[in-house]
Amino acid sequence: MTQAADMFRTHPRQSQIEFSVLAKCVDECYACAQACTTCADACLGEASVADLVRCIRLNEDCRAACQATGEMLSRVTEADWSVLRAQVQACVQACRACGAECERHAGHMEHCRVCAAACRACEQACQELLAALPT
Amino acid sequence: MTQAADMFRTHPRQSQIEFSVLAKCVDECYACAQACTTCADACLGEASVADLVRCIRLNEDCRAACQATGEMLSRVTEADWSVLRAQVQACVQACRACGAECERHAGHMEHCRVCAAACRACEQACQELLAALPT
Amino acid sequence: MTQAADMFRTHPRQSQIEFSVLAKCVDECYACAQACTTCADACLGEASVADLVRCIRLNEDCRAACQATGEMLSRVTEADWSVLRAQVQACVQACRACGAECERHAGHMEHCRVCAAACRACEQACQELLAALPT
Amino acid sequence: MTQAADMFRTHPRQSQIEFSVLAKCVDECYACAQACTTCADACLGEASVADLVRCIRLNEDCRAACQATGEMLSRVTEADWSVLRAQVQACVQACRACGAECERHAGHMEHCRVCAAACRACEQACQELLAALPT
Repeated sequence: MTQAADMFRTHPRQSQIEFSVLAKCVDECYACAQACTTCADACLGEASVADLVRCIRLNEDCRAACQATGEMLSRVTEADWSVLRAQVQACVQACRACGAECERHAGHMEHCRVCAAACRACEQACQELLAALPT
Repeated sequence: MTQAADMFRTHPRQSQIEFSVLAKCVDECYACAQACTTCADACLGEASVADLVRCIRLNEDCRAACQATGEMLSRVTEADWSVLRAQVQACVQACRACGAECERHAGHMEHCRVCAAACRACEQACQELLAALPT
Repeated sequence: MTQAADMFRTHPRQSQIEFSVLAKCVDECYACAQACTTCADACLGEASVADLVRCIRLNEDCRAACQATGEMLSRVTEADWSVLRAQVQACVQACRACGAECERHAGHMEHCRVCAAACRACEQACQELLAALPT
Repeated sequence: MTQAADMFRTHPRQSQIEFSVLAKCVDECYACAQACTTCADACLGEASVADLVRCIRLNEDCRAACQATGEMLSRVTEADWSVLRAQVQACVQACRACGAECERHAGHMEHCRVCAAACRACEQACQELLAALPT
């Protein structure tokens, strides 16, 4: 059981969303935030840093969006779905853009390959959560 | 001149957005993040905390969204407008929900009155930025 | 292999710290940030919220400190040990205070029991990292 | 009156610290977080980015530390001084390291000159707060 699932299981309030879907998305947000932080830093440490400017920028944006999303989805009490839906949609956009850019470098830089996978996993977990959100 | 405007003025890259509109939005995001943090804490310090649960929740979400948005908009290099547009839209939703809730308590709690004003100002700056974003 | 270890393994720069110690600390910081976010929200959702004000406050501070520490330790390039050492020490203080407070409620609220364990694990990983940091 | 002072003035709890000292530090933390975010991005946008790797790294760390510190100091309810003291000390280290590095580039890059000033102002406000903290 992951950290988020373990915490949600002990929560005094019921969620309108299945906890397994929510916990999966929370975990992927934190994992993607971590991957993007290290990928930006790894790009910065490459001799070819000048060719990786767009990748670093998108890594930093994706880190910020995933961090906010992971935190906001970690709350169950008095959730406002319009707020959460919009933030998850922003996270999808950030993961998609960052994942696509990292993918371009995945063949010759393994940190971009691992980070692209984290972005895709996070985007997918966000999409599954969006499908489960109350309308 | 504000902090953000002072920094943007010295940036080596041109932005596709007028810097004054961008800087205004950045400043309002940081101000709203600060206001929401203290408003959540002030609600927590009220004797009537049990009646302020929804307000605290929305304050925390608005703080997280504004912080991410302020940070992401502070970057000019290699901006991806689909990412920024979605994050600013998430910020609008968070400010709207938090501002409306704080407004309900504004008559008897001044921190909610001040915070509601910060939320409205941030929402408006976000809307003006959205109108200026490249399509 | 955890997310952080997977990313560090692919980094172009060598770290002066063993990657396993660093990755363990990064993972515990993110896990503790997640636990504290949900614990604060769970406390807010309890009927006895008025008795949990100090716990919520410390949860929020611990979340902020762990998030910053996890992010800063996710970077390897051009590390400044005086900066990282001080931030890890701040994280230790936050985890210790939050863990002790959650421990007080652990007998009757399981989210506090799980969160206290996350705080203790993070504090210990921070202490092990501090012992491994270059002087 | 600044955002933070306006919010503290309306807080239901008394602080053991003079609100003007606290508000000054909060404001400088947010301003420095903003400056560091844009300075990192401006460095990334320079043709000489390969020479600015250390500056970008310290900017990102200083942004993270200042953001956490500004948020934590924005709370008044049930403050734990051991936690806040350690976080403010971490902020001092981050501002000092980042300010010194930006200073090195201040002669030929104005964003580093402005950012160095923000770091120094934040470091000083942190030192004044440390002197005012309850022992």
